[in-house]
Amino acid sequence: MRDAFHEDLERTSEQLVEMTRLAGSAMARATTALLDADIALAESVIAADEEIDRLQRTLDDSALDLLARQQPVATDLRIIVTGMRMSADLERMGDLARHVAKVARRRYPDSAVPPVLRSTILEMGQIAERIVSKAGSVIASKDLNSAVELEQDDDDMDRLHRQIFTTLLSGDWEYGMECAVDITLVARYYERFADHAVSVARRVVYLVTGDWHQAYQTANAPR
Amino acid sequence: MRDAFHEDLERTSEQLVEMTRLAGSAMARATTALLDADIALAESVIAADEEIDRLQRTLDDSALDLLARQQPVATDLRIIVTGMRMSADLERMGDLARHVAKVARRRYPDSAVPPVLRSTILEMGQIAERIVSKAGSVIASKDLNSAVELEQDDDDMDRLHRQIFTTLLSGDWEYGMECAVDITLVARYYERFADHAVSVARRVVYLVTGDWHQAYQTANAPR
Repeated sequence: MRDAFHEDLERTSEQLVEMTRLAGSAMARATTALLDADIALAESVIAADEEIDRLQRTLDDSALDLLARQQPVATDLRIIVTGMRMSADLERMGDLARHVAKVARRRYPDSAVPPVLRSTILEMGQIAERIVSKAGSVIASKDLNSAVELEQDDDDMDRLHRQIFTTLLSGDWEYGMECAVDITLVARYYERFADHAVSVARRVVYLVTGDWHQAYQTANAPR
Repeated sequence: MRDAFHEDLERTSEQLVEMTRLAGSAMARATTALLDADIALAESVIAADEEIDRLQRTLDDSALDLLARQQPVATDLRIIVTGMRMSADLERMGDLARHVAKVARRRYPDSAVPPVLRSTILEMGQIAERIVSKAGSVIASKDLNSAVELEQDDDDMDRLHRQIFTTLLSGDWEYGMECAVDITLVARYYERFADHAVSVARRVVYLVTGDWHQAYQTANAPR
């Protein structure tokens, strides 16, 4: 019975990794849809969010089932509860990708991103893809080094986020208010996406070390 | 032993209600700080967020403790897991109040809110206060009618959120880009605050009825 239980935990972990893959793919495609004003791609991201939501419900149902049937304690209990929290983070990351796609759709046939910010948004999209992929590695391998690297990616995301505001407030913004509002929101979606990825990684660190303080020390380790 | 367990559940419920009270107070004070450019009030909101975070950690610790010690099944299990999710929503609502206060602080000694939007932001603040107070009533009394009312408040919040964008994009915005960026973000913070309150209420509905579909029907009931 114990073996079946640990197989269930293993499957949970695989499903979480699958969620990171879906969230990363959604954000990558949303970024392309935004930059290229690709309405079909935007629609596909919006539609695909249902798959991430469905996976979260599956994960939650199995977690509740495991808690009820196996009555786990100690580490096993923490693994299950942490899994539920990670799936909530990843579901939200899917929502944020959908929000980016919706901005692309709303501004079609124009691109919501003015030329001056194309490379910044492209880089934010790439960091988003990278950070969630690292979160997947952290889940799959419990590799604390990837968790540290991922915090570096988050710092890069924050830097680009600030850079967007600098451009918006530079005084020579010439793309109008609608574009400014869209960019303000889009930049926040990317930044929140990265925050949730950090949260996923920190939960794994906590699970491995049993210590939030350690999770934050890892976060602030010199690099 | 069973009685002590249900006393623990009751205490959890009281702590969740206390979190709604703290989140509501934080958002009310953040709104005043924003409208009146009151830096001391803004600082107090920013500092007080730690109390909400602390309460969430306390709730999480007791939930894990209850799961490990009491090995609950069926309804009791669902109550505990749902409580953890609600505390996560409420913690996030505290963060959003802090974000509003930080905008007030950043723009001090100016107010971030131009005259043309004062009444809208005031109303968003009042709805935020009301909606989280109703979420508290729903937790305390399992009253599904309050859950329905609260969805109405959320609709009002969404309407004001759209109204802000209409003002921003009207073509005669005269308050500059910094103000536009701040207002875009602040409006989103209020809207997300209300979303989390709705989420809290729906979780209670789900707990009472055992049915997400029902929770959403309640949400869409004619009023």
